[in-house]
Amino acid sequence: MELKIKNIGIESGGKPIVFLNVHDADELGVSASGRLQINSGREVTVIVNIASDSIQKGYLGTSKEVQKILKLEQDSVVDVQISAFPKSLQFIRNKLNRKKLTYEEIHEIVNDVVGGNLSESEIASFVTSLHIQGLSLDEATSLSLSMVMTGKQLFLDAKQIVDKHSIGGVPGDKTTLLVVPIIAAAGLIIPKTSSRAITSAAGTADRAETIMPVDLGISEMKQVINKTNGCIVWGGSLDLAPADDIFVKTEYSLCIDPLLLPSIMSKKKAVGATHLIVDIPTGRGAKVKTIGEADLLAKDIIELGKRLDIHCHCVLTYGEQPIGNAIGPSLEAQEALNVLMNKSQVPDLFDKACHVAGSIFEITGKKDGFELAKDILLSGKAEKKLREIISHQGGQPEIKPNDFTIGANTFEYHSKDEGQVLWIDNNMVVEIARAAGAPKNKGSGIIFNKKNGDKVSKNELLFTVYSEKAQKLSRAEQILDEKMPMGIGKKMEMLIHQVKEPPVVRRSFVLDR
Amino acid sequence: MELKIKNIGIESGGKPIVFLNVHDADELGVSASGRLQINSGREVTVIVNIASDSIQKGYLGTSKEVQKILKLEQDSVVDVQISAFPKSLQFIRNKLNRKKLTYEEIHEIVNDVVGGNLSESEIASFVTSLHIQGLSLDEATSLSLSMVMTGKQLFLDAKQIVDKHSIGGVPGDKTTLLVVPIIAAAGLIIPKTSSRAITSAAGTADRAETIMPVDLGISEMKQVINKTNGCIVWGGSLDLAPADDIFVKTEYSLCIDPLLLPSIMSKKKAVGATHLIVDIPTGRGAKVKTIGEADLLAKDIIELGKRLDIHCHCVLTYGEQPIGNAIGPSLEAQEALNVLMNKSQVPDLFDKACHVAGSIFEITGKKDGFELAKDILLSGKAEKKLREIISHQGGQPEIKPNDFTIGANTFEYHSKDEGQVLWIDNNMVVEIARAAGAPKNKGSGIIFNKKNGDKVSKNELLFTVYSEKAQKLSRAEQILDEKMPMGIGKKMEMLIHQVKEPPVVRRSFVLDR
Repeated sequence: MELKIKNIGIESGGKPIVFLNVHDADELGVSASGRLQINSGREVTVIVNIASDSIQKGYLGTSKEVQKILKLEQDSVVDVQISAFPKSLQFIRNKLNRKKLTYEEIHEIVNDVVGGNLSESEIASFVTSLHIQGLSLDEATSLSLSMVMTGKQLFLDAKQIVDKHSIGGVPGDKTTLLVVPIIAAAGLIIPKTSSRAITSAAGTADRAETIMPVDLGISEMKQVINKTNGCIVWGGSLDLAPADDIFVKTEYSLCIDPLLLPSIMSKKKAVGATHLIVDIPTGRGAKVKTIGEADLLAKDIIELGKRLDIHCHCVLTYGEQPIGNAIGPSLEAQEALNVLMNKSQVPDLFDKACHVAGSIFEITGKKDGFELAKDILLSGKAEKKLREIISHQGGQPEIKPNDFTIGANTFEYHSKDEGQVLWIDNNMVVEIARAAGAPKNKGSGIIFNKKNGDKVSKNELLFTVYSEKAQKLSRAEQILDEKMPMGIGKKMEMLIHQVKEPPVVRRSFVLDR
Repeated sequence: MELKIKNIGIESGGKPIVFLNVHDADELGVSASGRLQINSGREVTVIVNIASDSIQKGYLGTSKEVQKILKLEQDSVVDVQISAFPKSLQFIRNKLNRKKLTYEEIHEIVNDVVGGNLSESEIASFVTSLHIQGLSLDEATSLSLSMVMTGKQLFLDAKQIVDKHSIGGVPGDKTTLLVVPIIAAAGLIIPKTSSRAITSAAGTADRAETIMPVDLGISEMKQVINKTNGCIVWGGSLDLAPADDIFVKTEYSLCIDPLLLPSIMSKKKAVGATHLIVDIPTGRGAKVKTIGEADLLAKDIIELGKRLDIHCHCVLTYGEQPIGNAIGPSLEAQEALNVLMNKSQVPDLFDKACHVAGSIFEITGKKDGFELAKDILLSGKAEKKLREIISHQGGQPEIKPNDFTIGANTFEYHSKDEGQVLWIDNNMVVEIARAAGAPKNKGSGIIFNKKNGDKVSKNELLFTVYSEKAQKLSRAEQILDEKMPMGIGKKMEMLIHQVKEPPVVRRSFVLDR
């Protein structure tokens, strides 16, 4: 059938979508989410949306994505035909019906996800079935490799390439900002890519961006590593395992995360990692609640690593409260810099960074990793290395802790009770920091004066909320009027709470990985 | 945040979708498929799509659906805020995690599906989890009732209201065109709503439409029933159980059908049926392949009926070949009219119609149902009743078999072998009829001269393909060049086929219900 192009100038989120009048759709025998093939020099497959009056009979409404491929003027005539459903749909259907998928089948699915040949519903169905039925180790391997093969890769000329990753879920975790320079200072290659916050108050890329540009391409990243042994860049612009970004869109609103391991491992494989330490923050309020659960996850990571030729160890870390005292991109970067410069004592952050870096040293064959990391940190070598990295990534290497712009609107929260800090609710901490503007407003966030176990007198300062915008600070205050992110009391108090009617369970889901 | 309205004039398939610039989305803290609340007099919840350049910062691109609700001019300023995810998402998540859903939870989901508050991905995830985990009888009951409650209902002043339904999957099934007048002629109330073809060559609504208008509203339908005891109308315009139309969109490309029973039963409940006969065509090439499978389905139907206060019986019918000789809307209606007028003998169609009508008589307490149906059919009372219904639905009651417009382009297929008809492939029959233009071109289709078991000489006519358009006829001929929809041979031939390499399984899925 011949149709006239109508460029409707709307983005469809990456997918090649066209709008077809209901009569033309009937005539072609195609339904919504069916596929059409457009022949105009070359063949392009597009997904159909059906319009009853916004597109006239005889016209083909094209999204920006399709316009980019076709490059056709308004009213150009193209020949369209009904196109078969992609083969990958049959494989998704097989997974729905509990069949194990082969590498070739998974590769076909991932390829069609990246190529925009599968609709949102179809991708959601695939992700849902992975969530319900789980992935076998074979399938996780195939998914990881397919996600690598459908994206770009970094090729470095080194025998050992190390990397670290955190499963996430604990606020204020600026460990990477310390670990990368410690490792690079010791002469190991660490091509660190990081993500921005999705559900959290700051991702490593958000933190690092307050010190230096992180939006590098693959060749720039390679140059920085060749000169400094390391880097801290945003993974989002590198096109490593791009399928993951598409899967994440589906997972987010459904609060499911079946692709966690392939997502992590594909990105590590894509930068050529040979040795990997995965940090699993564990405990109430973290993503992983119990040590048993963390051990099972560690087992899967190590086994998947073996299949992918990445030597993996995991570290389980205490995840029941924020790491250090600062939450929010700039406040966290400032705290990390203070520790690197030995200007302030942040014992939990210091300990965690030395354990993670120490594990990296040990997995590559060095002894007394923790001590080695500690020496590099205390000697100032790590600070020097970070400044080198900052310089090569295009930042200001002389940056000082006072140079950060912190939100000028503040709200101090004082204790109404006396006793000890019994708990800090990570989810609420994130909620308040985000209400105050983090991660979008980099200078917004929270500074804690008290952490778990600290003694508290009545009216003593517990924490301060910082916000770049007065309006957002009041939003954070409103939340604090209703609920508290810290519990102050006596250790002998046994009652957690009473349940008198069926409780409404609060939605809390950490997708960041 | 205040944004200016930009009406983009595009339909989004029923869902209230807005387009937001990526910077505004960041500022609001909302992601793709997140929800916004628009305040302009009243509160409206919309689903977010993120645009990086087609929508400028400060603007809110609104789809036709949102424009209809808001009724705002270009550049009007509205206040938008991030809105919580709907509660029903939590219930969908519970289902993903293998929890049974209560009536209230299912009602909330169905209500949000109909209200456009759930995205395509979220609905796909729900449907997928129903497919994988199955529905309990409680859940099927809740779904059926929720689907009734979220649509319109027909209220008739009668103690007994009968209905029939076919699970479908067998081509040429024009049984309903005979059963409705037989039943109505006997004085029983039968408010028959039917669907159009989705994957088949003709739905009952498509067939009936070649005789009379079927696009009636609820009150018109009620008038026809009050005057004639029955009707044959298209269910699609009545807004009975509208959730189903939305679920079907997801099911189609995934080839899954978990909502089959709630879909059927909700539509019967919505017209107030008290007694229901469900026809389950069974056999190779039908939707239900084996008698065991059909019996299990019948059990579920009868039990679900009990919960919904609908007395159900099922009839298993032979489904391995088309019913009668005609395929395609006009050809089928013509054949049905010929049988009603006793002008031609179509033994299988006659037998099936009398069995289905007879079962309806018996479930309402009448004896010798089959004989009663046969008498009404042979006496001409059923023909008279159909003409009454045609008249009240606004058609031409004197219609004769010769009045139908049949495609003028024909292709005769003659047998290359001699022997007997060993099989007819229902899927291929549908493929050929659709290639020839059915159901869109009502005069396109197939007439069979031979059916299973018939003796065939070499060069004898097996079937004729009719098409309204020469181009479509050649498409059908091309298919017939490659494969045959009938097998001719000798009964003693034991070999079905040899498998020498892994076979490619052909996609064949009948969604019509």
